[in-house]
Formats: sequence, C-alpha cells, structure tokens
Amino acid sequence: MFKGLAAFPLTPLINGRVDEKTFVSLIENLAAARVDIIAPLGSTGSYAYLSRKQRARITALTIGAAEDIPVITSIGALRLDDILQLADDAQRAGVRGLLLSPLSYQPLSQEEAYRLYERVAHAVSVPLCIYDNPATTGFTFTQELLCAVARLPNIGSIKLSPFSDAAQAAAKISALRREIPATVTLGTSGDPQAASALLAGADVFYSVVAGLWPRDIRALTDAALKGDEAQAAALNEKFEPLWELFRRHGSLRVIAAAAEICGRVAAPCLPEPLLSLQGEARAQLQAVLSQQEYH
Amino acid sequence: MFKGLAAFPLTPLINGRVDEKTFVSLIENLAAARVDIIAPLGSTGSYAYLSRKQRARITALTIGAAEDIPVITSIGALRLDDILQLADDAQRAGVRGLLLSPLSYQPLSQEEAYRLYERVAHAVSVPLCIYDNPATTGFTFTQELLCAVARLPNIGSIKLSPFSDAAQAAAKISALRREIPATVTLGTSGDPQAASALLAGADVFYSVVAGLWPRDIRALTDAALKGDEAQAAALNEKFEPLWELFRRHGSLRVIAAAAEICGRVAAPCLPEPLLSLQGEARAQLQAVLSQQEYH
Repeated sequence: MFKGLAAFPLTPLINGRVDEKTFVSLIENLAAARVDIIAPLGSTGSYAYLSRKQRARITALTIGAAEDIPVITSIGALRLDDILQLADDAQRAGVRGLLLSPLSYQPLSQEEAYRLYERVAHAVSVPLCIYDNPATTGFTFTQELLCAVARLPNIGSIKLSPFSDAAQAAAKISALRREIPATVTLGTSGDPQAASALLAGADVFYSVVAGLWPRDIRALTDAALKGDEAQAAALNEKFEPLWELFRRHGSLRVIAAAAEICGRVAAPCLPEPLLSLQGEARAQLQAVLSQQEYH
Repeated sequence: MFKGLAAFPLTPLINGRVDEKTFVSLIENLAAARVDIIAPLGSTGSYAYLSRKQRARITALTIGAAEDIPVITSIGALRLDDILQLADDAQRAGVRGLLLSPLSYQPLSQEEAYRLYERVAHAVSVPLCIYDNPATTGFTFTQELLCAVARLPNIGSIKLSPFSDAAQAAAKISALRREIPATVTLGTSGDPQAASALLAGADVFYSVVAGLWPRDIRALTDAALKGDEAQAAALNEKFEPLWELFRRHGSLRVIAAAAEICGRVAAPCLPEPLLSLQGEARAQLQAVLSQQEYH
C-alpha cells in the first residue's frame, strides 16, 4: 500500500450534485491505466464540500469501478465525531487506506492535532495517511509533531506538502526517514515538484494530474522510481506549461478547467463558490492544451 | 441595527451535543445586561462545527430567550447552496441580521468571494454583515473588494478583522468611510483593540468577552462610543490581563476555559478536536480570574 502512483480524480458536480456517470468514467480510465492507488475525495475530489452521503456514494462508485486497484479516501472533517463516522463508512465500503488532514476552522494547536490523530489512529483498522496540506488547512506540522504522529499505530504514509525544490525534498525526506518507522512511506504532492521528489527518495506520487491523465504520469513515476533521471526529466518537461499554471493558480482550478475544456466533465464542475480557471488564465490553458496532448 | 454592543456567546457542548439549558442561561444573561445585539453562532459560538439542525435549534433558542433584543447569526458554510439554506432557516426563525465570512477549504479568489457575496446579498431579506476573519478563513479582503461588497444591496455592516493598534484602526476606518455607503456600519472584532477602535470611529463592538461578561463591556462600549477616553481606558485596563491571554492563545480557547473555570458551562465545552486552554496557560487564566471579577 501507499507506494507508486496514487491518482486523485475530480468529483464532477452538476448544480451541486455528483455527475455519477462522468465520475465513473474517470475511475474506469484510472483502472485501465493501472495506477497503483485510486484516491477519490482528496482535495481535488472536493471532499470538504460534500455531504457524508455524497462521500459514501462516491467511495462506493469508485470501489465498483476500480477493478483490483486499492482505493483510499479522505475522512477529513471539522469535528472528530464526523471524522470517525466517515472512517466507518469508508472502511465498510472496502477502502484499503484513509487520508486525514488536520482540517480546521479555528486553526489547530500542535497538541490538538496530535490528539486528533491519536484518537483516529486507534479507531481505524486500515492504514492511515497523514495528509499535510497547509494551503487548505492553515495548519503547519512541526517536524516533531509529524514524527510523533507517524509513530502512532496504523499510520501507513505521509502525504507531504509540496516541496520548493529538489534540495528541500531530499533534505526533508532524509530527515524524516531517520525518525519515522520504516513501515511509513513518504509521498509527494504538488505535481510540479514530484519528479524531483521521487528521484530524491519519495515512495509515492500523490498526483492531481494523474486523476485526469494517468498514462503519462504512470510513465513519469516509473522512470523516477527506477532512478532514470533523463527519462523522468523528459516526461516531466512535457508538463512544464501545465506546472507553470499550477504554480500560479493552484492545481484544482487548473485541472477542473482542463477537464472542462477537454469535454471530460460538464462545465462548471466545481462546487460553488469555487470557479475553475476563468478569463485570460483559461485562454492560456486552452493554448497549452491545443499544443500538447496529455494522456 | 449593527450598532453598539453585539455579544457573541459560546455554544456549550456536551459530547458534541448542545447543552441547551446552559446555552439559554448565557442568552438570558445577555438579555438582562441589555446588549444591543445577541449573536449566537459566531466563531465563538462554533458555527462552523455544527450541523444545519443544530444551528437552527440554537437560533430558535436564542430568539426565545433574547426578549426584544435583535438576534443575528452566521450563515457561513463551504458551499453556496448550504449558505442559502442556512440563510432561509435563520430568516424564518426571525433573525434581524446575518453574518457571512468567506469560509473556504480551497482559499477563495477575490472574484469567487465577490460572486459569493453578490449571490447571497441578492437572496436575503435582512441585512448582511460582512465577516472578515482571516485567521479562520485564510482569506484576505483587498480594500477594493471590501468596498465593492459593501456596495451590494442588503449590506448592513462590516465586522472588521482585528486591528494592530489605534492608529491602524483610525486609518482603516476613515479609508473605508470614504468609499462605502453611509448605511453600512463598521464594527471591530478582536476584543483587546476594541476600545481604541470605538474611540477611532467604529460603530459597533462585535465582542467575544461580552458573550460571557456583558456588563463590564456594556459600560466600556458606552464610554468609548461617547468619546469618554478616560473612562473607556479605565474599564479596558481591567481586562488587560485577559487581553494578554487572548493575544497569546486566541480568544476562543481562553473564553471557553474561563466559562469552564467559572462554572458557567460544563467542561470540556468545545467541539473536539478543539481544546480550551490547558496546562500552564489555564493556570495563568485561573490566577487572573481569582484576582479580578468580571461581570
């Protein structure tokens, strides 16, 4: 578990309702491309915007379409009791792992976050991935807290916040490796920096782009995990125009607009008040997609 | 509306359920102290952690116990459709105003926030208070956006984010006054800076402490709104040890611990994973409360 390529698909909505047929087509594409993990309901899957019922439905649809590929899902919520209910729902549906971010309204203290993970880690029966995403949670893990949480039972992985560059990735990964159990894998998020992070020793690519175009990222991940720098760099270069848009506008609004432009989902696909890329930025994306085909 | 003293009570919970009897006693105390506005379900009232049903119940309990004092409530939620439902619920229950923060998981763009307020402002029939609270939303209003939103229909007030000092309060208030309709009042949050902000021209004190101890803050607000600097300073001085704790630990965890220590609510009163002050900080608060009686 928690190794290789984990693909995070969008949850396409139409007027706030899940477009189930389209969602299933996204999952079938991930299964056909043989990603290692299918991860609906990540930040890219708008988990925080969906009801418990919608989340249960999406998990069931994913498991139904994922063939033999393990499914993991986020159980993040503001309240501990909701988190525990979501964990129950997901485990009953048959997920193989859970993701949990220290989601909050009042930003959590380090102690509150530790106690949260402690309670959940002891309550679940499938491995948990610590989901570090300060841009959405407003929470910053200290190195000490991250290591303490990684030593709890049932922790399978850490989905690390995006790295600024390869050197930072290498330093952070080696510092964590010294402190955390060998059973806990380290994953990279932030697609633009992922190739370097994998080359620097990350075990898993938690990928936004792979949710839409899994084949190219499958090849990139394989090359990087084999240590083939030249091939990884060449495959990564193809995505550079897209990474540039990710860096400027965040990944969600770009990938949602890309899926809309390519006709893979109906527009608008995000939960209001979120908007996919608009105006000039959308035109730039359109230009990128007309010059470059992603798979 | 939106003038004078608005008191924000806690929503005391017991194992995730609203402690209704205790909550009503907090509201009765606010009514007896003749605050100008009772504002359940602010950040202090943990609105973001409660279900639609719990929020409707709290609004109804407040209106039932508020005598003739206007009640306002927060309709913040991640999804626009939820916000509109909460607005409907609150208006049907008889609130006189609504508060809306640009709550988000994916931090909103300026355009998304504008469209959000535009949609809600056109949909409601009681005045709306723009709730600027970057510490919890991760969203920063530009001056331009704040003014544009203030010019929408049905906007009654802006609950401004805490000021750093009196000079900043005076500068921000006078800059906004030049740009926004005269019907939109300006309110100060951040209790430690409120006396200076009222003396600098703010119309309303959106107060955390008044939710627990309305009488002293009633006197402070009256003195400051009359321009009586000496009396306002003297009344404010009494709270300085508490403000120091607010500055260091945030207002919610301090006021929750204070209510627990004084036996006004059962401990723990906050929704898990939030914790009221613990350890040394709690002992410091206990020392403050043993030396100083607040009313």
